[in-house]
Amino acid sequence: MKKPVCLVIGAGAGIGGNVGKRFARGGYHAVLCRRSDQEGLDALVESIRSEGGSATGFLLNAVEEGSIEDRVAATEAEVGPIEVVAFNLGAQIGNRSLADTSYKVFELGWQMATFALFRTASAVCPHMLERGKGTFLVTSATAAVRGNAGQHSHAAAMGGRRMLCQTLNAELAPQGIHIVHILVDGAVDAPDTLGKMLGPEEFQKLRETRGQEDGLLVPEHMAETYFHIAQQHRSSWTHELDLRSFTDLAWWNH
Amino acid sequence: MKKPVCLVIGAGAGIGGNVGKRFARGGYHAVLCRRSDQEGLDALVESIRSEGGSATGFLLNAVEEGSIEDRVAATEAEVGPIEVVAFNLGAQIGNRSLADTSYKVFELGWQMATFALFRTASAVCPHMLERGKGTFLVTSATAAVRGNAGQHSHAAAMGGRRMLCQTLNAELAPQGIHIVHILVDGAVDAPDTLGKMLGPEEFQKLRETRGQEDGLLVPEHMAETYFHIAQQHRSSWTHELDLRSFTDLAWWNH
Amino acid sequence: MKKPVCLVIGAGAGIGGNVGKRFARGGYHAVLCRRSDQEGLDALVESIRSEGGSATGFLLNAVEEGSIEDRVAATEAEVGPIEVVAFNLGAQIGNRSLADTSYKVFELGWQMATFALFRTASAVCPHMLERGKGTFLVTSATAAVRGNAGQHSHAAAMGGRRMLCQTLNAELAPQGIHIVHILVDGAVDAPDTLGKMLGPEEFQKLRETRGQEDGLLVPEHMAETYFHIAQQHRSSWTHELDLRSFTDLAWWNH
Amino acid sequence: MKKPVCLVIGAGAGIGGNVGKRFARGGYHAVLCRRSDQEGLDALVESIRSEGGSATGFLLNAVEEGSIEDRVAATEAEVGPIEVVAFNLGAQIGNRSLADTSYKVFELGWQMATFALFRTASAVCPHMLERGKGTFLVTSATAAVRGNAGQHSHAAAMGGRRMLCQTLNAELAPQGIHIVHILVDGAVDAPDTLGKMLGPEEFQKLRETRGQEDGLLVPEHMAETYFHIAQQHRSSWTHELDLRSFTDLAWWNH
Repeated sequence: MKKPVCLVIGAGAGIGGNVGKRFARGGYHAVLCRRSDQEGLDALVESIRSEGGSATGFLLNAVEEGSIEDRVAATEAEVGPIEVVAFNLGAQIGNRSLADTSYKVFELGWQMATFALFRTASAVCPHMLERGKGTFLVTSATAAVRGNAGQHSHAAAMGGRRMLCQTLNAELAPQGIHIVHILVDGAVDAPDTLGKMLGPEEFQKLRETRGQEDGLLVPEHMAETYFHIAQQHRSSWTHELDLRSFTDLAWWNH
Repeated sequence: MKKPVCLVIGAGAGIGGNVGKRFARGGYHAVLCRRSDQEGLDALVESIRSEGGSATGFLLNAVEEGSIEDRVAATEAEVGPIEVVAFNLGAQIGNRSLADTSYKVFELGWQMATFALFRTASAVCPHMLERGKGTFLVTSATAAVRGNAGQHSHAAAMGGRRMLCQTLNAELAPQGIHIVHILVDGAVDAPDTLGKMLGPEEFQKLRETRGQEDGLLVPEHMAETYFHIAQQHRSSWTHELDLRSFTDLAWWNH
Repeated sequence: MKKPVCLVIGAGAGIGGNVGKRFARGGYHAVLCRRSDQEGLDALVESIRSEGGSATGFLLNAVEEGSIEDRVAATEAEVGPIEVVAFNLGAQIGNRSLADTSYKVFELGWQMATFALFRTASAVCPHMLERGKGTFLVTSATAAVRGNAGQHSHAAAMGGRRMLCQTLNAELAPQGIHIVHILVDGAVDAPDTLGKMLGPEEFQKLRETRGQEDGLLVPEHMAETYFHIAQQHRSSWTHELDLRSFTDLAWWNH
Repeated sequence: MKKPVCLVIGAGAGIGGNVGKRFARGGYHAVLCRRSDQEGLDALVESIRSEGGSATGFLLNAVEEGSIEDRVAATEAEVGPIEVVAFNLGAQIGNRSLADTSYKVFELGWQMATFALFRTASAVCPHMLERGKGTFLVTSATAAVRGNAGQHSHAAAMGGRRMLCQTLNAELAPQGIHIVHILVDGAVDAPDTLGKMLGPEEFQKLRETRGQEDGLLVPEHMAETYFHIAQQHRSSWTHELDLRSFTDLAWWNH
């Protein structure tokens, strides 16, 4: 019998990759998609297999027409039923003033953070609806609940993501599809995203200042909660939860 | 001396038109833009002029490239300083299931409700910043704070609008530009929008059931609050407020 | 004919006093209640009368059993119909750690901020319901929407206030009573509250740093919005709005 | 070595009892407190022991002065370190109009839902702070985020509870104490609370209409999430999450 599939859109070395690992450890086949870095992707797949887990990896440009749709179709046809989607595309580009935010950048934020989720849901949900079950774990950000200076593109895109999650939930939950909006409210110890945005030196400095073990959100531990939420009995589902390090101020306390 | 301008994007016979009238009565020149219905537009301009007010009207397809940008430039060059923008484009298309929401419809919602606001802000704000003052009155909808079944496009677009307003506010308020997110949380007695969506018969029935005087939001009265907010002293600004009829349940009580 | 009454609970030299003045200027008889400072109260009444307005003042300890209830009864019997209540009692005591917050202090916060509002509503609403109209303008604080360190008593009390306002609104709005929750999200230029909390020197320093004209919320200007909201046509009511100086960060941006 | 203690305040046959069972199964000693029904309490303790778990039970009137404080002190002195508190007192009394909500009822809601939590935190936190760790799992209700008609007492009390949780979190999280606000947004299949409020017949009817297995929130399954949250690594803590049955409308969709 085919293993159930956990499809990870945005499977870097941070949240996405660790969620893939956790679900593989829990009996799923992980289909890992990321935009670039074939080497990193191979290493991730390898590390899962070396633990006895099952995974395949694909480079996928989410913004490209048909890219997500084709991957979903191929997965359902060739790998197994997508029981869990971990949608993990970010759209953070750092702070830019209104004057410095081009139309193109603004649109790209929406393409990544809002439209790609809509496309993924449009492609996956018919399969889930047929089976009467499925889970969408949508990684989201503080910008989904408050707009800060310099976040024109990111906040608009993430605000759209959150409202889209609520809409999907209203329509699909009663049909057995669990939609989860996970508000990641703090810096994540992730070399592929935060690390790249800050550069290696400043990233390492931040890690040291905060405490390397638990001062930033640790993807490996976050993945435990992603996994738990996906296992909730449908009498007791969570739609929204936040995650932050114990040393982080909550967004409403900044 | 040139009158200050109130630029209305989305000036139908409902909120937009009445906001234009109110500001004209308050000493502004109203620049009224709407997508279609030259006749209705002319009648609106005429009704303002017949009261002694000052207004001009333009058909404008907000989704068309450059349309808003050109109108802003022409207004600043030929009419007067845009002191107030009433951004009033809606993107409500009625309820559609996920399966019935095409990519095109989803994107159009974003084009109207989110991107058009970003474009307007990008075009107008440099002028306002130079003058150190200005007001954006952004009409918004319940879908900006909660996603309901069937609202995939609308909620995603309006959620983006709200977060964009907060971002604009965070950057621009300290520079003297007043950003206001007006949550219209109920049916508006507006023939051009609700009337068209429901059709004339059902619209009239709704008006009669609810009470024609005050059972729906009455644009003429809403416009008083739009005007008041634009006159607030900058020591005491409102960024967000809701509006509904006394008989309407608030969105959190539905 | 008797003038309509605006009853101000918490009428110091800041928001309460200025709201009283504004409504007196607008044709109401202001009944001004405050806990102490007969001299200040007399001066306030006198300043209203010297402008041709109509007002009376009372020292009233809101925490004392029957105090509010008796004042409401006497006002209705002897002065005129209470058309507007401006409920303006604060419960801010500065930051205290959990260990330093006594049960007594915690309860006092609730007595002032939550229970006193419930008592006022219980006393006034039967009169308003009989007349089918009335307005409650409830001054509230950032602590009503987010709890910050050191705000155990204040946040719990204000959170209760906000939820009570929503409950009152759900029950009473359809019967013609307008309930308004006014989120004052910033420091107010008020000698009786902020001034006392900070002490005269630090208060003056803050005023100078921020800009005396508009860097703090100016009660005189805030009162314009209180007045406007109380005049809204019932087709277009606001239940919640925020107020802050243009230089203040919104609470969600701190 | 002493087992860590999970102290349950409000340990009926619904959420509280099941949380106690789950933590006992996970290696904690459960200290179970409830107001009445010695028989039910004994049965609960017995069922835990029969599974090989460890528990003790106490009748405790939370509103009584010193009751919670004494139980906390005795537990710490005689049983073991309180590592987890499951605070589970409700204050729902059904819908009552403003006129039918007495001062006494209003105050009792606050005593149970807000003040008892403050007292518990005041009693337990010094111990937790000394150990640099601990978890508060606070069961909360929809009324904490929106006030509905008839909920004057309940909403004011729960609104206070939520803001208190945020305040506790802001102060205590950086010191290693995990505060969790669990928004139970739906009817719970609990004979001691919902069952009593509805009466046995209507309760059974509701269970049958909704589906007995998963149409109401099932405490046994909810307890899994309580347990998971208490085990989160402190790099990745959740402060707020919601729980509802897949067939329940979320509160913002009603």
